[in-house]
Amino acid sequence: MTSLATLTNRQFRLAARPVGVVKDSDWQQTEETLRELTEGEIIVQVLYLSLDPAMRGWMNEGKSYIRPVAIGEVMRAGGIGIVIASRSSKFVVGDTLSGLLGVQSYWIGAADDRMASFYKVDGKAMPLPKYLNALGMPGMTAYFGLLEVGMPKAGETVVVSGAAGAVGQTVGQVAKQKGCRVVGIAGGQEKCDFVVKELGFDACIDYKNGSVHEGLKTHCPNGVDVYFDNVGGEILDAVLTRINMKARIVICGAISQYNNTTPVKGPANYLSLLVNRARMEGIVVFDYADRYHKAVTEMAGWMRAGSFQSREDIVQGLENFPAALQMLFSGKNFGKLVLQVAQE
Amino acid sequence: MTSLATLTNRQFRLAARPVGVVKDSDWQQTEETLRELTEGEIIVQVLYLSLDPAMRGWMNEGKSYIRPVAIGEVMRAGGIGIVIASRSSKFVVGDTLSGLLGVQSYWIGAADDRMASFYKVDGKAMPLPKYLNALGMPGMTAYFGLLEVGMPKAGETVVVSGAAGAVGQTVGQVAKQKGCRVVGIAGGQEKCDFVVKELGFDACIDYKNGSVHEGLKTHCPNGVDVYFDNVGGEILDAVLTRINMKARIVICGAISQYNNTTPVKGPANYLSLLVNRARMEGIVVFDYADRYHKAVTEMAGWMRAGSFQSREDIVQGLENFPAALQMLFSGKNFGKLVLQVAQE
Repeated sequence: MTSLATLTNRQFRLAARPVGVVKDSDWQQTEETLRELTEGEIIVQVLYLSLDPAMRGWMNEGKSYIRPVAIGEVMRAGGIGIVIASRSSKFVVGDTLSGLLGVQSYWIGAADDRMASFYKVDGKAMPLPKYLNALGMPGMTAYFGLLEVGMPKAGETVVVSGAAGAVGQTVGQVAKQKGCRVVGIAGGQEKCDFVVKELGFDACIDYKNGSVHEGLKTHCPNGVDVYFDNVGGEILDAVLTRINMKARIVICGAISQYNNTTPVKGPANYLSLLVNRARMEGIVVFDYADRYHKAVTEMAGWMRAGSFQSREDIVQGLENFPAALQMLFSGKNFGKLVLQVAQE
Repeated sequence: MTSLATLTNRQFRLAARPVGVVKDSDWQQTEETLRELTEGEIIVQVLYLSLDPAMRGWMNEGKSYIRPVAIGEVMRAGGIGIVIASRSSKFVVGDTLSGLLGVQSYWIGAADDRMASFYKVDGKAMPLPKYLNALGMPGMTAYFGLLEVGMPKAGETVVVSGAAGAVGQTVGQVAKQKGCRVVGIAGGQEKCDFVVKELGFDACIDYKNGSVHEGLKTHCPNGVDVYFDNVGGEILDAVLTRINMKARIVICGAISQYNNTTPVKGPANYLSLLVNRARMEGIVVFDYADRYHKAVTEMAGWMRAGSFQSREDIVQGLENFPAALQMLFSGKNFGKLVLQVAQE
């Protein structure tokens, strides 16, 4: 085994709380030599990191569903890694783990660390990036948010924004599996073509080239029964004008508002909930942790059967973390954004 | 029987769709002599009319849960009246009816008119205005909105805005009956004293004299589990910052926004629904029509037992309709606002 003292851990730490768009000066890059393990600890070499809209929220102060990243702390990120040293009976060298590894080249700590929440994944069964996408947090968010909060019935119309993104692509495909009419909303013709031609959505509205309101009229002739919202802002307001009686709106995120320096724009058309006896409800994926295995099993089955896809956009190199994160908020990624930190 | 030709029906008709606050010129006053009845018809003398925030919405164009009042049409209003002539087997002279009578002194038409939706009330059992308050639409809205959408459990904290109003007073009292901690939000010390000292709310926040946010911190030390919203705007936003996990927000109305000439202000803090896995859902009372009798029976029982009140603010005279309607939107009424059109 390599002496740990020869391994350098490169890290991105939060230097300042960003105001609006994240700047390079909001990050501090550090390097550390890895220390020796104590009993119960492991070292995980980071292979892939998941870049998610939620990361922007973690950088802000204030109460949320998870504590903010502290100034000076390694930036939080989920990822996939391989155990390269272990003094724990829980994991052995060579195990492939999923968990909150952070934006760094190595993770070191107790194998049962509660924040990291490591669990083993089967690197032989599926390519590892899938475990950060359909078979990871975005997929779990999509699966449980759609089925448990959106409660779509066969024949109903499901609309999802951020349709080509990590959560959106799975929302739409699960809804298709359940017999729904599925209409995506995405930015650009290429993304729209992808969700329709490759993922099998019934239609897709390009919000960058036309009116979402008109698109909904055209593609949802029977109105909207379930709207899965990843973006907030004007798109949420447009969908609110087209919902059916007893519609369900799943609030998963609001990427259009995360970099605001002005207050969040609330949905001006929210009284449509009253007129239509409709519901708007939030979803946080952690609530469903005890049933992730069920969703992974079902979606992996669809993937093996060829009726379900999980598309990733993989950026190479830890040093490109700040630039890659920017891609998310400008909508430049195409599929689930993943940072590859080391070769498998 | 009086000859119908000697009776003059005075009416308030919609002359123009109001922009912002309703002006006197938005009304047209007309007088008609009553015509003779044809088979199946009745004449109802209007005794009391219910003045409700929802009336403002009925004056606007556009799709809603009920069609708008047409220009030139008698203004829609619920009320209580007495049958003074009948060629129907459904009702006889002397019957006391509740239904959509309109802002006029007499209603004439088919006894089974679908829009009017007449049903008999027992004028001996309870004072008639109660049938426009706790035992009428506001009471039904409060009862079913709270219990079916808000789903409060004993020991939970229920907050209701417009607490001294028709819907609010019943929401709070039903929540008390169900064992909840109840905190009202109302405008002015007198209204706050009323809901606490007379209706038995645990506390009341005077939004005209202090911060709602601070009031919620003080009076809801365990957070807010159910919020019944009659007002929208800044109060809804303040409550959103204090909700608990899995909270339910019942959207019943948004009186603060009804006279806007600018777009409705959406709830900027709606992402609190996400963080707290909470729900915001609309209620329209008509959905529960087949169970009104259950609610009337239960609340009339509480009233007879002395543990439940229904407070009305009664304005005299059909000619005072425009001024009385204004009172609603400036918060000048104290209790359910009722217009007495004729003596019993």
